[in-house]
Parts: sequence; C-alpha cells; structure tokens
Amino acid sequence: MENYSVVGKRLPRIDANVKVTGDAKYTGDMILPGMLYGKILKSPLPHAKIINIDAGKALKLKGVRAVITGKDTYGIKYCIIDIPQALDKCPLAVDKVRYIGDEVAAVAAIDEDTAEEALDLIEVEYEELPAVFDPIEAMEPDAPKVHEEKENNIAMGVSYQLGNVEEGFKNSFLVREDEFKTQAIQHVPMEPHATIGHFDSSGKVTVWSGTQSPYFIHRDLARTLNIPESKVRVIKPYTGSGFGGKTEMHSHDFCAALLSKKTGRPVKIVYTREELFTNTRLRHPIIIGLKTGVKKDGTIMAYDIKAVLDGGAYNSTGPLATFLFTYFPFLVYRMEHYRINSTNVYTNKPFCGAMRGHGAPQGRFAFESQLDMIAEELGIDPVEIRLKNAISEGEVLLNKTRIKSCGLKDCIKKSSESLNWKEIEPHKGIGMGCQGFVSGANIAPPYDATGTIIKAHEDGGVTVLTGASDIGQGSDSIIAQIVAEELGIKLEDIRIIAADTEITPLEPGSFSSRVTLMSGNSAKAAASDVKQQLFEIVAEKLEANVEDLDARDRRIFVKGSPDRGMSFKDAITASFGDKEMPVLGRGHYYAKVDTASMATGECNMSRTYSFASHAAEVEVDPETGLVKIIKHSAAHDCGRAINPMAVEGQLEGSVSMGQGFTLLEKVYIDKGQVLNPNLLEYKIPTSLDSPEIESIPVEAIDNEGPFGAKEAGEGATNPVAPAIANAIYKAAGARVYELPITPEKIVNSLEEQ
Amino acid sequence: MENYSVVGKRLPRIDANVKVTGDAKYTGDMILPGMLYGKILKSPLPHAKIINIDAGKALKLKGVRAVITGKDTYGIKYCIIDIPQALDKCPLAVDKVRYIGDEVAAVAAIDEDTAEEALDLIEVEYEELPAVFDPIEAMEPDAPKVHEEKENNIAMGVSYQLGNVEEGFKNSFLVREDEFKTQAIQHVPMEPHATIGHFDSSGKVTVWSGTQSPYFIHRDLARTLNIPESKVRVIKPYTGSGFGGKTEMHSHDFCAALLSKKTGRPVKIVYTREELFTNTRLRHPIIIGLKTGVKKDGTIMAYDIKAVLDGGAYNSTGPLATFLFTYFPFLVYRMEHYRINSTNVYTNKPFCGAMRGHGAPQGRFAFESQLDMIAEELGIDPVEIRLKNAISEGEVLLNKTRIKSCGLKDCIKKSSESLNWKEIEPHKGIGMGCQGFVSGANIAPPYDATGTIIKAHEDGGVTVLTGASDIGQGSDSIIAQIVAEELGIKLEDIRIIAADTEITPLEPGSFSSRVTLMSGNSAKAAASDVKQQLFEIVAEKLEANVEDLDARDRRIFVKGSPDRGMSFKDAITASFGDKEMPVLGRGHYYAKVDTASMATGECNMSRTYSFASHAAEVEVDPETGLVKIIKHSAAHDCGRAINPMAVEGQLEGSVSMGQGFTLLEKVYIDKGQVLNPNLLEYKIPTSLDSPEIESIPVEAIDNEGPFGAKEAGEGATNPVAPAIANAIYKAAGARVYELPITPEKIVNSLEEQ
Repeated sequence: MENYSVVGKRLPRIDANVKVTGDAKYTGDMILPGMLYGKILKSPLPHAKIINIDAGKALKLKGVRAVITGKDTYGIKYCIIDIPQALDKCPLAVDKVRYIGDEVAAVAAIDEDTAEEALDLIEVEYEELPAVFDPIEAMEPDAPKVHEEKENNIAMGVSYQLGNVEEGFKNSFLVREDEFKTQAIQHVPMEPHATIGHFDSSGKVTVWSGTQSPYFIHRDLARTLNIPESKVRVIKPYTGSGFGGKTEMHSHDFCAALLSKKTGRPVKIVYTREELFTNTRLRHPIIIGLKTGVKKDGTIMAYDIKAVLDGGAYNSTGPLATFLFTYFPFLVYRMEHYRINSTNVYTNKPFCGAMRGHGAPQGRFAFESQLDMIAEELGIDPVEIRLKNAISEGEVLLNKTRIKSCGLKDCIKKSSESLNWKEIEPHKGIGMGCQGFVSGANIAPPYDATGTIIKAHEDGGVTVLTGASDIGQGSDSIIAQIVAEELGIKLEDIRIIAADTEITPLEPGSFSSRVTLMSGNSAKAAASDVKQQLFEIVAEKLEANVEDLDARDRRIFVKGSPDRGMSFKDAITASFGDKEMPVLGRGHYYAKVDTASMATGECNMSRTYSFASHAAEVEVDPETGLVKIIKHSAAHDCGRAINPMAVEGQLEGSVSMGQGFTLLEKVYIDKGQVLNPNLLEYKIPTSLDSPEIESIPVEAIDNEGPFGAKEAGEGATNPVAPAIANAIYKAAGARVYELPITPEKIVNSLEEQ
Repeated sequence: MENYSVVGKRLPRIDANVKVTGDAKYTGDMILPGMLYGKILKSPLPHAKIINIDAGKALKLKGVRAVITGKDTYGIKYCIIDIPQALDKCPLAVDKVRYIGDEVAAVAAIDEDTAEEALDLIEVEYEELPAVFDPIEAMEPDAPKVHEEKENNIAMGVSYQLGNVEEGFKNSFLVREDEFKTQAIQHVPMEPHATIGHFDSSGKVTVWSGTQSPYFIHRDLARTLNIPESKVRVIKPYTGSGFGGKTEMHSHDFCAALLSKKTGRPVKIVYTREELFTNTRLRHPIIIGLKTGVKKDGTIMAYDIKAVLDGGAYNSTGPLATFLFTYFPFLVYRMEHYRINSTNVYTNKPFCGAMRGHGAPQGRFAFESQLDMIAEELGIDPVEIRLKNAISEGEVLLNKTRIKSCGLKDCIKKSSESLNWKEIEPHKGIGMGCQGFVSGANIAPPYDATGTIIKAHEDGGVTVLTGASDIGQGSDSIIAQIVAEELGIKLEDIRIIAADTEITPLEPGSFSSRVTLMSGNSAKAAASDVKQQLFEIVAEKLEANVEDLDARDRRIFVKGSPDRGMSFKDAITASFGDKEMPVLGRGHYYAKVDTASMATGECNMSRTYSFASHAAEVEVDPETGLVKIIKHSAAHDCGRAINPMAVEGQLEGSVSMGQGFTLLEKVYIDKGQVLNPNLLEYKIPTSLDSPEIESIPVEAIDNEGPFGAKEAGEGATNPVAPAIANAIYKAAGARVYELPITPEKIVNSLEEQ
C-alpha cells in the first residue's frame, strides 16, 4: 500500500451531515417563485390510436393554467441511444399510444390536487388496437405491430459468432442446453423522479432534475423542444439514487419545460411511486437459451446463446442492452467458441432501460446456474471449475478484450474461504457466482470526454467543477479524495460543484460505472495542473527545482527537507500577489477504447475491468420453500479502493438489490396493466431481510484508474442471483430456472422431482 | 473604427428580456424551503452604552425562532478597508451604540410581521452618552468621543504637499479662497438591500445577497462569524443597482447568517427603504476650503485645500474616500503646486461610504465653481480657461500619474459645441464642468487579480465564468460582447455565470469602475486561450498554420480564404472527438500600478484614465428660484465604447444622479435623527424631471483596455453639479456654495446681493 493521506481511507462522505439532517434539498423540496405543479395523463389502453383530445373542461377548472398534448409538440422522437433507427419515442404521444401508461397530455395548475383533478376532465377518444404482450408472440408475422416500421416487432438484433461453435461442441465431453428466464423489476430509488422546468422570457429553459445525467436531458430536451442546445440548462440538485433509471430524459422533464413555456412560470412535476413503475423504466426480462460445451475436466469450449429481451413499448437503452448481453459473458470465463443471437422485441408494455449491471445480472443467473449443473454432472467442485476457467491478468479474450489487471481468481478464493463449505448443515447450502464488468464505456459519442476545472481559493482550499453526477453513490466524495490526495491537502479543503450543464465541464453522466475512473482521472489531471502551477511559484520562492518539490499535509516543500517549504495557502496567496494570476487548473480524460463491431462482437469496451465472486449460504425450509440467506460474501476486485467504506456500501447495496432480484421482486403485468405498482405489493428487501454481508475488497491495482482504482458500482449486483440460486439447489435440491425464486417455485420444483 | 462584429455595436443587453418581464429573480424574490424572515432592532439613541438587553418577551412571541444580540457574536470588528486602524464596526453593537440606527439585536420569525412585532418586545437598557453631530465640533478636544481610541474623533487624515504652494501663490496674478459644502445623499437603488443566509449542518453558510462584491461579504462574514473562509459561499443573484452602496458587507448579511446558524433554517432579511437611509451608507458631506492661485492668462499655479469629511459613526470606505478626495483633482487640470489636508471625522450619525464618483463629485463642485469665478474675474471664457489648463495625452502629472490617452480637450470642445453659448436668452445660462477618473483601482490586496474561465459547449456556444458583478450596469453584457468578438461568434452564443465565490474565479467586485477594463481584459485573455486551442485543432484539420487563421461569423478559416475553414461548432466538436479534450480557456488580469504614498500623494492609481466635460443649459425663475435644466450635454472619453448604447445609459443615469445631487437631494439629519428616510420626503429626479441629455462618446482608444475600452460608469457623475451650478450663476447671477442648490438658496443669494 502506497503511503497515501486521503486515498484509501475510510472517510465519511463530504455530504453526510447535510443528508442526515435534511439540509440537502432535492428537486422535490425546491420552491421557485410563482411555481406551478404539473401532472401527466396516461393512456388506459395498451395500444390505441388517438382520435381526439378535448381539454376544454380541464382548462375551465379553477386553478388550471395550461394543458398540453402531442399536438403542442413537434412530434420529434428521441432515444438515449442516439442512432437514427433507435429514435422511437415522443415525450407526449402524437398518433397512438403503445402501452398502459403512455403519456398523452399534461396539466399545469396552482397545486398538485388541482392538476390531478384536471386530468380526469381531459377527454381522450381512442380507437383501440390489438395488442401484443409476449415477446415470442410479438415476433410472429401476424402479430400486432407496436411500431409500424419495425418488422416482426424486432427493435434490435445482435448476432455474431467467434470461433466455430459447432466444432466446439463436437470437441466437448459434455454439452448442456437449458433455458432460463428473468423478470421485469424496477429500480425503486428512494427519491422519485422529480423535475422543475423554467422557461424564461429570453427563450431559455432551465431544468432542475434528479438525474444521473444532465447531459442526456440537455441533449434530448433541446431536440424535442426544437430549440438550440444553448437555450437549455440542466442542473442536478441532490439526487436520491438512480440505479440506471434516471440516466435519460423522461416525459416529465419535457412536460414541465413545455408547460413552463406555455405559462411563463416554473412548473414542477414529481412522479408518484406508481408512475415510477409505469413511466420510468424496468429491467429487461430476458429469455435465455443457453447451450454450453465443456471438456471432461470442466474447461469451457463453446457457448451458443439465444436471448430474447422483452423491451416493452419503446427502446430506451434497449439497443445497448441487446449488445451488452452478448458482451459481458467474455469477462468471466475463457472460451474458444461463441455464438450469440440477442434480440430486443417491442411489446405493448411499460418499457425497459438501463439498470445496475445492464444485461449482466440476467446473463450471470443463466451462465453460473448452468455451470453448477455442469460441475455436478462432471463431479467437479464449483469453486474448482470456476478457478479453472476464470480469466486472468494479461489475457486477450476471444472478442479481443485486453485484460490488464484481474483479481477474479483471488475473488473466487476469498469469497469461498469466507464460508465453511465443508461442514454444511442439513437444509443449508452454499453457492457461488462470478462476474466481470467495465470501468466505464463510451456511449455518447462524440461527447464521451470528461473535463474538470479546479479553482484555488485564497483560503487555501479549492473548488472542483465536475460534470460527475453524484446520485448517492458518493462520487463527489471520491473526486474530493482524489483531488485532496493529488494536492496534498485535506478532504475538508475541497468543495465540489457538480453536474450543471452551464457551469461544469462536459461529462456525459453517471452510468456504466464510469465515474471513478473517468471523472476521477480528469479530476486528478486538473489537480496535477494546479499543483504544477503552485510548484513553479514555490520553486521560485525557495530557489529550488520544481522536480524536487512535494505536496503533503497542506504544505509544499522540498522532498526530504519538510522544513524547507511553505503552506499550500501561502502558495496560493503568492500566486495572486506575486504572479497576479488566480490559479486555475484544468484536466480532461477520454478513454481510448475500440468501438464494438456489431458484426463480430469484437471490442475492448473499457480501459480496465473489475471482477467479483460472491458466495452465499442459505437455509431453505423444504415444506414452505422459504429461503433465508444466512451469509453473503462479496469479494470484489475494485482496484485501489479510494474509500473502502464507500466500496463496502456499494457491495452491500448490490447484495441487497440482487437479493430482491433473486427472491422477491417482479413487476407483474397482466394484459399490459402493471398489477403491483407500489411498495406494498412490490416487495424489496428491507434492512431486516438483509443477511450478514462480508465485503472483501480485492485490490488488483490498475494504473489506468486514478491511484489504481476500478469499478465498484454495478458489477457486484451481477453474481448475487446465481450465488443464491446455486445455494438453494445445494440446500434443497431445487433448481429454479426462472427468477424470482419464490417459495412456490421451490416447492413446485421439489414436487416435480 | 476597426472592423468589429460585436464590439462597438448598439446591442440590447443579454438580460433585457428577463428583466422587463420579471423573470429575473432578485434576492427578495427567492424562497427557500423552511425559510424564516429576519428583522433588525436599531438604536433609538445617537450615543449610549448598552447596559442590558432582555429578549425574553420577544422569544415568547408565537412564531419567533431566535433572537441574537452582540453577546451572541465574537465582537469582531470589520471594515471594507482592511487595514488594522480602520476596523471599527461590529455587525451587532457590543458595548455601545454610536448612532440612531446602530444595530443592537436581530430576530428570526416565521414571517416579517412577527419578526417586526418581536422587535418591540426586546427590552434594551441604555445609558445615554453625550453625542456630537458636527464634524468641526467633533474635532474639538472636549468633544464626546465616538470611538474612545480615536484622538479628536479623527478617523483618518491625509496631508501632503507637492511643489511649494506658498511659492506658487507668490507667483500668481490672482489668488481666490472660497468655501464649499456638500451634503449627505443616499444611493437609492431600485432594489433594497436583501440577503438570505443559510447555515447548513456541515457548518457551511451560503449567502445570497444583492451585492456589488460577493468577495467582500465572503471575507468579512468569515471574519466576523469567526469561521474559515472555506465555510462561506456568497452568491449574487440579479441585483438592482448599487452605486457603491452595496460594495461591502452590511449587518443584515451577518444577522441572516447568524440567525440561520441558531435556527438551522435559511433566514431572509430585506431592508426597508427607511433602513437604506439609516443602515446602509451615505455620500460623505465635505466642507472644502479651496485656495487657488492662477496666472493672468488663467494658468493654474497652485491649490491649497482643507477638506473635512463628515464620516458619521463608522469608517466604511472613509479611509479611501479621504485619500481619493486628494487624488482626483490631479486628473483634470495641470498644476505646479499642491497642498492638501483631508480629514475624515467621526460623528454620531448614520455613516458614509462609497458612492458613484467616491470623493470626486464633491471636489468637482468646488474646483469647477471656483474656476468659473476666476475666469470671470480674469475676463476669460469658461471654455477657454478649461482648454488652457486641461491635461493631455502623454503627460506625467505632478503626482506622477501617467496619462497614456486623454480625450479631455475633445470633450470640452464637443460638449460646449453642442450648446449655443452665444445667443443665450434672458434667465437662461450655460455652465460647464470637467473631470477625470480611474478605470479601476486595486483596493483589496493581495486579491486584486481577476480570473476568467471559458467553457466551450458542444452546441457551438461558450459559458463564461466570471467573478464580475452585474448590478444593472450591464457588465455581463459587456463581457459577453468582448468574448463574442474575440472568438468571432455571436452575442447569443455566450452564456455568463457570474459572481459566486464558490464557482467563479477570484474577482474583488464592481467598484472603482474596474469591471470593463479588468474583468474585460481577463475575459478577453480567456477567450483568446479558447481561440488558440481551437486554432490548433483547425490548423491540423486544414493543414494550415495557426498564425494564418482567423475567427469570424461563427467560423474559423484561413485569412483571405474564408471558404477554407470550418464552423466554430465543428471545431469544438473536433476538440471532443479527435483531441478528446473539452476546450477550457482561462485568463487573468492584474493591473500593475504604483501604490499610493500617503506621505507624498504620489501614485499612478490606474492603468488608464477617462475624462469628461459636461455643459448644462438652465433656466432660472428669478422670483421663485426654480431651476429648469433645458439641455445637458455629456461628452465622455470612454476609450472604445464596447456598446455605445450602454455608455449612453451610463451617461444619462449619471446626469440624472448628478442632477439630484445638485438640485434636490439631501438626507436631513437632526441630532442624529434622519428626518426624511423615504422617497416621499427625499426627492430624486424622475423621468419627468429629466432634461434633454446629449451623450457624446469621445473615443480616445487606449490599448490598456479590452479593444481599447476605458471607464464609463462613475466619472460622468462628477461634472454634473458644477455644470449646473455655473449655468445657474450665468442665468440668475446667484452663486451658491452649498449643495443642494435649492430655490430657497438661489433666492437668498439674489436677495443678499
């Protein structure tokens, strides 16, 4: 371990105080002078033409200030994945509605109650169309078309082969074929989606939105409002988590802005919990047909995969998810042949988008469950088969991914060692799952570069202007630690100004676990620039060489002669007084990676990769099928843990989220109608449901990241489901192929045997 | 005239729309969640010891959340002029009160009415002390002492001689000695002083304040609250003018912050119009004893001056005003000998501070009035005597001031030519006044440097981060024009983020007419840095040399081959995509000038100087003494007029303000009590009182300023009073030595003859 002062320390978050006391204000807390409140009218039908909308009665309601419908818009389609064939959604439906929940009109009124009341007075005449809810049925030639122009309702298909799969199967000792299914789940952020739009008389709109990416709102709001980007400013206030569900622009952002344009007043829209289920995004349910060939010793030879993603009514990140599902398998186990067919299908249902892991958790459930079945058939220990196949440092994978650092085997060893595999009691079992993940990816070309500005203050502190969006994951604190370390000052000397398209340098947002590496590298570069400027001033004062200087403990001094130096504050003061130049540092970072080939799947998506292995011990009641997780060990190769406490927080949160995905959560949709859009009927794990979690950071340092840091935000969600599923099998003998693994399914599985 | 696209154009302000529609929100408009409202209790006595304060009853009033008194403070003294001997004011009185209005306690309550009501319930026990109200009496040895430690109540004295005045008088043909008096006036900003303080649970206070200088509030709030500067953030929302009266921290800023600390909630305090008269600042009344010697041909030989400034109870900018009064006379007429004794005296009255012109308008009234008397005695035309003595380009003045550019003689000629001096009707008269002024001064060492950051946007626009405080004078628009010109883009491509101590680079504020030159130079340097970065990218693309490129009309191209180039937007996009570097420009400016010597008065205070000459034609009713200004011509050497319309706005506003100073305005104070603290009894000129004003920009370009620009903000106030006073004398034969020149004084003067 290097001799760091701030990096690697278990420091409390810089926003901890204001968050626990409630001083931190979220979008929903904000009040602007003259502000109105907006509500959105949603389609009650899964598929229908809009014949007419009459807002007359609504407009007559006392307190109503404006009503907008698709006719008030330009009908411009957008999609977070900015490729022509993906643009499929108008923020307000223009011609037809495609799911129960599709936005058809919005109201601005003096309060929420009035706006809500006005929704009931808007008369919409629909012509109902036949609808399709099942992705397999949707691909039939005679199925109703969700989007007219899309053949067989196929939104996106990715299909390629590396090596020769048939050859691989031929050379295999064992070939297994299984089908797995995963379900739609919701992110359930603590803070519901909230936005305030304020169109002022200069023609400029300012939006405060709880978002993971002011950048995407900025881009898509300008596009759909048909105004120049220079007329849009997006500011992220404190944001109460996102998990992928706040990455893109949602209809409320657009409606608040347009209602503000109509009324000349700020308009706030806060989604209800029900709206989060119907009007934000879900995790893609995937039907995974998985055929795997292995040698007798367990060496994986070939994979042949057919995946059908149920995208719902619109694309959102679907095109990316379709590819990512094909990509993530490479990052775990070595393979020689690989064939994939991944298809994202439109259905008349609430639609799916990015969610923590983004295509990986579904795949890991299938791959790791099947690997355990293979191990059992071959009589190999699950840990051993994983160690045998696990990729390692220095490898170039089948798809040309280059692994510079890899702690996967360490993770497997450490997570297994933390549980007692040998002396297992009756009805208890231990299972394992592994994964690999990116440390950021470029998904917003040509704007994937990240910049940082650092301003030195006369008080000896600095302000960091960063586009990074802290949504509760703690990126502000991590960036502050990186800058403090680089400058040799204290954490409390750092002030962070973040995520305001007008003020902070370009940065696409918080997604793909990109922030620590990308924003961190950019911030470190800016800090280094500040340091260089100060070193020059100090070198002159001390009559020393710049190269001989060091910065530490709020001092800049000659290496080896700590007394020969001056305080950081005095150095800044000197920069004003003597050099007459306020010190301003700038830094940038762009991850040079290979763009993915859709034809071959070849790519090196990230500059470095993180890895994890989880082991879970569960107890299953064979009569009721009830599962209790006794202990969950999460070993994660996060490179240098900038803040081990923050890494543990991510790992523990991931385990909890994965636990819900595995055992509890499912958005039940019947003929397009969400049946459980509330936290009474949609169950997520609470703190009381949480097992003992052991977080085991594995630090395979990679100098691609700031101080050697890698991803720790999403990857840990991925191995949770298979670890628990495999443990359930060991405990009860029940192999369940479809998530969530409810007590009912366990009992059914046992009864079938 | 250079071939500029944006500079020199009559463009509307960038905030014009939002200001006329009311979209622009000022501090008073702001609402924060949970906000409380504060009111301040003031002393009813001009001079008294505070024996006891009992807030018990006030605290029991329903809705009251906190009461603070001097005992809740650290009793730390501050002053905008940060020299030890000047620090004389606690934001809440600790031991004694020194004037009627001195702040003794403050209340935070759920609304303003409750806070106001609570003030009446605070019981303060005073022991009254003898008070002194006249500055001459205050200097008597047995006068009551406003501040115990100050001998003879002298706050500050500046006294020096250059040349040999007695020798000068000996060699003079005529020596005149007169006494002039000026009065206390108030700035009367449209927006009253307003502040919101929010101390959050991290120990940090954020202040939104309508101010000319977030910097000074930042510094003095940290000092008086006894917290590190890093724990203070000051943001300037839209601000409704200042005229010098919003340069420093006022008690409401401190009280709002401390009340917020006590309550944990944001606290807003908005001063009433009455409080502006008693609790902000006034213009220093000055008694000016002026002895002048001239040769027979009107050449000025020597000045001997005794000035007594009535500072009121505290210093504020008094030390600076005391010096500036001695300094400004050099900038107009050549002289050989100069002796000055300028004394700022404490009295038990509301106190004085910076106001547009800051020591100059008082002096110009005296100097220019007397010069007309001298001209009359010598039989020389007033225009001629001014032209004879006016300084010009290239001169080094008696006090070592170096004049690089000077349009004074041009101003004199043009202002006189715009009126018909020859054929003057009965009861009408024309008079003239001249002045010279600084284009900024360094008064906040070591922090007088100014920085700017410019961020290039993917939409082809840029955001400028500047510390400059637009208080209605239009600095945001001027900086935008400078940046647009330098980058060759349009005004609408520029977004300004200004005056936030946490975000924007160091800049001390809007005072001493420093912004166009200093902030403008800094912004131009930052724009030039952006341009250089883009040129390098474009040069590579075009296979051209950087030196051969030009930027204009949103394009970067090879000089002389406009087709060989690319759009500014594409160049920025290339910087992201190819160079992977978001373009960030930085610039700074520091005016290298000579520090003033208090012993000799020698200094070169500014990098360049502006000049003006005004001519006024008035009509005086000899029976009633009523003065009507028929026309006022303001010729002003502002260097390059970045925006001629903005310069005209400054000139017209200055004439109006000077008109009030000359004819209408006076804060009447009786035994320390302000008698007319409201706009019913304190009259300022309205648009109906305004004469025809002819603004005549004289552009003596000086390359010290951005595109050759110089001051245009304060100087034009200075020659108004003497121009009108001299015109009144010509019209009616009445010479009034004391401002304001009321009808009563004119009639009295005529009756005395």
